Amino acid sequence: MPSPVTFDPPRTVIAICGGVGGAKLALGLKHLLGERLIVVVNVADDFEHMGLRICPDLDTVIYTLSGLSDEVRGWGRAGETWNFMEAIRQLGGESWFALGDRDLALHVERTRRLAAGETLTSIIAGIAATLEIAPRILPVTDDDVRTKVVTSIGTLDFQRYFVEHRCEPTVRSISFDGATVARLNPLVSAALSSTELGAIILCPSNPYLSIDPILAVPGLSDAMRRSGVPVVAVSPIIGGRAIKGPTAKIMSELNIETTSASIAKHYTGLIDGLLIDSSDTADVEGIAAHVHATPTLMTDLPSRIVLARETLAFAARLAAG
Amino acid sequence: MPSPVTFDPPRTVIAICGGVGGAKLALGLKHLLGERLIVVVNVADDFEHMGLRICPDLDTVIYTLSGLSDEVRGWGRAGETWNFMEAIRQLGGESWFALGDRDLALHVERTRRLAAGETLTSIIAGIAATLEIAPRILPVTDDDVRTKVVTSIGTLDFQRYFVEHRCEPTVRSISFDGATVARLNPLVSAALSSTELGAIILCPSNPYLSIDPILAVPGLSDAMRRSGVPVVAVSPIIGGRAIKGPTAKIMSELNIETTSASIAKHYTGLIDGLLIDSSDTADVEGIAAHVHATPTLMTDLPSRIVLARETLAFAARLAAG
Repeated sequence: MPSPVTFDPPRTVIAICGGVGGAKLALGLKHLLGERLIVVVNVADDFEHMGLRICPDLDTVIYTLSGLSDEVRGWGRAGETWNFMEAIRQLGGESWFALGDRDLALHVERTRRLAAGETLTSIIAGIAATLEIAPRILPVTDDDVRTKVVTSIGTLDFQRYFVEHRCEPTVRSISFDGATVARLNPLVSAALSSTELGAIILCPSNPYLSIDPILAVPGLSDAMRRSGVPVVAVSPIIGGRAIKGPTAKIMSELNIETTSASIAKHYTGLIDGLLIDSSDTADVEGIAAHVHATPTLMTDLPSRIVLARETLAFAARLAAG
Repeated sequence: MPSPVTFDPPRTVIAICGGVGGAKLALGLKHLLGERLIVVVNVADDFEHMGLRICPDLDTVIYTLSGLSDEVRGWGRAGETWNFMEAIRQLGGESWFALGDRDLALHVERTRRLAAGETLTSIIAGIAATLEIAPRILPVTDDDVRTKVVTSIGTLDFQRYFVEHRCEPTVRSISFDGATVARLNPLVSAALSSTELGAIILCPSNPYLSIDPILAVPGLSDAMRRSGVPVVAVSPIIGGRAIKGPTAKIMSELNIETTSASIAKHYTGLIDGLLIDSSDTADVEGIAAHVHATPTLMTDLPSRIVLARETLAFAARLAAG
């Protein structure tokens, strides 16, 4: 196990995170920081399905940080079974969104607690504690923000676009319903204004679909800038391509060049540094942030920890000026 | 396969039914009557659990008549798995009521449709059609009726008494919340007043816990009497004992002798005939209904069909006067 990176004095670190790609870095950061890590998670992919509240990004972070995630399939829980879905199909129910038997427990338990009046923040904290997850996992808001994807076949709810239509329709624009009136999670505000804070990391999640709806919550970007700590983004682009998911396809459809320079430009005014893959050094000439190049492909736990260490060290150098 | 019993002309038969014991006879009746069987089912065991509407008696009837039931365990679905429950326990959720992964699909689908404004009657009809169940399955009412058991440890919701406390507390009385204002299912009224009706069977379910809350719905008993067809009860008592469940224990706690004569007395004024087990002929001297004795233990499908045939033949004799 690598020794933990320490700021001097030890600081908390906020990781702003979407789903799978972001959670991988969050896992690396967890191994270095433990309870000094605060993961602020996207909720705009959340939706109601079969009467249940499903929170794909929060759940991916929970499963990844607790060691319950299925590393091979890339989403959901390890050792999952699908008998519920089989029975749903038998009963003629909706089957486009796959819910594993074990995964379902989280949705049912969350929905029950929400109906009883508990906040999403409190529910996630309780589940994280039960699963002995040391970092704090905070939904960016307890209010409803919902990603809508305007596509060639009409405006789609995010999961319809992402799962049912497998990202196939051409994206014309993306909006976040409810974002302008969503209230920033007070625990996120408190963490951002704490004197304990050492750095803010934008994880290598999809900037347009996963990070933007977090940043769209009023007050968050301002509080990040006011925090006075380095804000470092880890680019999801490697060798001019996105490793996973529709990032490159969406960038192309939005007429954005699939480069880390585009990522830097997207985050202009917010980030102090951009961590890019070693193969992408050529395309980041003249961008506004400090750049650090390192291998960013996370294939296993050691590579996640190495990238987390590189990211924290880069932030520490930026903090030292 | 035995040839079907026919009234002349062919008639519909209403079976009034609770859970496991009643559903066994309903399955026998189904084999003889097919779509001419109408099963009117108790809803007073229904409850909300984890935000889901659970209908134990309706589900037992559905699983039994569709061939999905677990004959060995005696409840729930065959080939069931329990990974949802394992995950619920892992998350610190409520685990006193076991929900199988496959069974859960029915609860989630029903809850979703109820929330969308569909009636329980319509939902059950849709599911029965999907599962190709020929008989009609009708909840006695679409309104909420809830069995409360006044016990030595306080008043308990039925499932708390039945499952969580395993029927251990002493029963002092039983009441049916909501029964006085529940509206009889109009499809049940229509079936009872139809000129097609040939007989009404009270299945050998627990009279106090399963049949009484059906009969408690205003208008049902009157409509049964007005129907002019034979009403035949099948006693759940065999050799002075109840085969399954808490019937005998409850009768004893309510100071009722555990005999078929007590069952006849309980149904006085409602039934024309009582079908009892051959071993119980001694104790039915002087009861108000006609009595037919036959082996009533249903150990397998053939014995269910034989008992169903005996019951229908008895009703046909009573109809012939």
